[in-house]
Amino acid sequence: MRPSVLIIAAISLVASAKADQGPVPQHMAPPVMREIAPALADYTDNVLFGDVWNRPGLAPRDRSIVTIAALIASGNTVQMTGHLNRALNNGVKPSEIAAIITHLAFYCGWPRAASAVLVAKDVFAERNIPRDQLAPDSSPFLPVDEAHEAQRSAGVEAQAGAIASAFVRYTNVVLFGDLWRRPDLTPRDRSLATIAALIANGEVEQLAFHMNRGMDNGLTRAELSETITHLAFYTGWPRAVSALPVAKAVFEERAALPEKAPNPDAETKSTSQTSP
Amino acid sequence: MRPSVLIIAAISLVASAKADQGPVPQHMAPPVMREIAPALADYTDNVLFGDVWNRPGLAPRDRSIVTIAALIASGNTVQMTGHLNRALNNGVKPSEIAAIITHLAFYCGWPRAASAVLVAKDVFAERNIPRDQLAPDSSPFLPVDEAHEAQRSAGVEAQAGAIASAFVRYTNVVLFGDLWRRPDLTPRDRSLATIAALIANGEVEQLAFHMNRGMDNGLTRAELSETITHLAFYTGWPRAVSALPVAKAVFEERAALPEKAPNPDAETKSTSQTSP
Amino acid sequence: MRPSVLIIAAISLVASAKADQGPVPQHMAPPVMREIAPALADYTDNVLFGDVWNRPGLAPRDRSIVTIAALIASGNTVQMTGHLNRALNNGVKPSEIAAIITHLAFYCGWPRAASAVLVAKDVFAERNIPRDQLAPDSSPFLPVDEAHEAQRSAGVEAQAGAIASAFVRYTNVVLFGDLWRRPDLTPRDRSLATIAALIANGEVEQLAFHMNRGMDNGLTRAELSETITHLAFYTGWPRAVSALPVAKAVFEERAALPEKAPNPDAETKSTSQTSP
Repeated sequence: MRPSVLIIAAISLVASAKADQGPVPQHMAPPVMREIAPALADYTDNVLFGDVWNRPGLAPRDRSIVTIAALIASGNTVQMTGHLNRALNNGVKPSEIAAIITHLAFYCGWPRAASAVLVAKDVFAERNIPRDQLAPDSSPFLPVDEAHEAQRSAGVEAQAGAIASAFVRYTNVVLFGDLWRRPDLTPRDRSLATIAALIANGEVEQLAFHMNRGMDNGLTRAELSETITHLAFYTGWPRAVSALPVAKAVFEERAALPEKAPNPDAETKSTSQTSP
Repeated sequence: MRPSVLIIAAISLVASAKADQGPVPQHMAPPVMREIAPALADYTDNVLFGDVWNRPGLAPRDRSIVTIAALIASGNTVQMTGHLNRALNNGVKPSEIAAIITHLAFYCGWPRAASAVLVAKDVFAERNIPRDQLAPDSSPFLPVDEAHEAQRSAGVEAQAGAIASAFVRYTNVVLFGDLWRRPDLTPRDRSLATIAALIANGEVEQLAFHMNRGMDNGLTRAELSETITHLAFYTGWPRAVSALPVAKAVFEERAALPEKAPNPDAETKSTSQTSP
Repeated sequence: MRPSVLIIAAISLVASAKADQGPVPQHMAPPVMREIAPALADYTDNVLFGDVWNRPGLAPRDRSIVTIAALIASGNTVQMTGHLNRALNNGVKPSEIAAIITHLAFYCGWPRAASAVLVAKDVFAERNIPRDQLAPDSSPFLPVDEAHEAQRSAGVEAQAGAIASAFVRYTNVVLFGDLWRRPDLTPRDRSLATIAALIANGEVEQLAFHMNRGMDNGLTRAELSETITHLAFYTGWPRAVSALPVAKAVFEERAALPEKAPNPDAETKSTSQTSP
């Protein structure tokens, strides 16, 4: 038997936890990939879509958020069309896609977000998504967790206050005082998108902060592990390998802490349990 | 009052130093962004163009150089058209744009520069920029600062001489012996573009060297701080956050040095005071 | 004499080792580059194609593999057309290009590979490359070096087993158990492409591992040094500067080891000696 056949058997074991879902779809690779790079098409069908996307631990809706964030972060607009459609099919709302793009303007830069807007426009038009689904959310902004926020702003002040006071103010007033509090995306989903973008761009320095923040916002250890594994396929193995020790350190540090009461706001805002 | 309204008030305080400039333009976000991601359009109008671009400390011409360099470094060709036009409006000469692209071929790789050439061609054609404005500058090449150069070349020799002698020679003969001495862009502006490209690509390792070189070439501490703050919006917060401790260390180290006579060549070559 | 003339003389000395090849081609820069950025066109003709590509130490076929890998890694699809054609002219087989793209799906992420597939399709169609040249290779998969593999898998298990067991399994079963063993690209060429992609994306953390693996697979010290020098031009000086100390440490560590018998498999599989 050839290894490429063996691999499907071996990988199927990995996927055994989802045995109740029956056979997985087998023809996800586009015809051009099957023609030009048949081995890549096999991996795409058997491993990436036949296995990774179906793994437990991270819902399809979350995998879509992670994938879109990685595509935006690395400027892969060509692959964005398919994955925005997939995200909508997986339960990400149009307004949430707009919110992810807006959020990542701050984490990957305006140009990446502006390019993503153009792709989203075409996808939304193609699906006849009515404009009112993209109207600004009129819900109240989320309250600030004063204790967390005081600690965070003291950190940025200590780091940058003496040399870039405007940067400190934008960080406090705009980024954390406004963007993160918008009601169109839960803090948990913002954290998920942020973590994916950081990993995609190889920015491990801020990863521990955002993994901790993400877990405070309701992300689980299993979800973060699966996010890294998923991103190995979307941003390459090296980015995942660099993220793993950060995750390990965060998990160990949190395990050593006394049990913390879960953040009730994050729990109720989390949509991971209800996503398809 | 909603935070997004509050934010404009808060940010306006930030911008109070430019009170004499009157109201800032409010409709910079393209219609597609306003339609698809209205919150992003608000940030674009109220924060990025309503505030950041108008801040003191870094001239609009310099902000354009920083922005173009970041776009070239990250391969964002789609957003380049608008920003090349903006740069020309802000006083960057066509020959300087060509020189920035050429310079960044060495700092971001040939492919990024070659892609930028294609965008520049269309922008220049659209504005009917005559070809002679792009002819090679016939001024003499800038003289070498022998002391600086001896120190720099000794460094690269120590680091790479034993393992990559051709790289050392290209660095000494082509990069520093030719490119940096070309008269079509001041050393100060070369430093500004280089620093922006390093931050955009997350290359903090060489940042201290180029911040020091940039200050030797006439960049001020305020200009570097504003460059980092500006880049938070164009390359994402994480790149800026990683650059800040480097700037802090460079500033502190230079503050601890005995007062140095300013480099007269850099002073006269600097165009920051005369830019619009 | 102007420095730009001097530089050609100085660089010609660098290239003196290939004196038997006669004059080098002088008009590689595309007309649009000559028109918009004449200095960049001069560097392209005189330094990059007039010198770098003709240097000894790394065969043209290898330089094409390194260049393609860098373009895929950084998503420079616009420049890919020219360099895929150049690679085919330099002796890289169509099936090897497909294999490089497939390999780099794992090292730079699926989206970069999927974008490259589209460019390759057009290049192959333009050259009327028959489809059977892209059919899956029916040769047996390469055997596993059990000792190396045991050590490698123990490493990934120690690093990630406790937090991301699925990632460990994909790494062992798919990446090293299947992809690296495919017969359509030699391990040496896989290492060359991997190293180029790591440098292009600034992923120095995994570079020492892959430089050591590459040398085990038959890459020489001279080839690695030339790869870094070549990449200075294709990914920018900073990426090369960050790679140099890693190479230096790897070379020194290996020099300190007792002489190792060369891997006979890697030797016979290496095509560097026979490439045009």
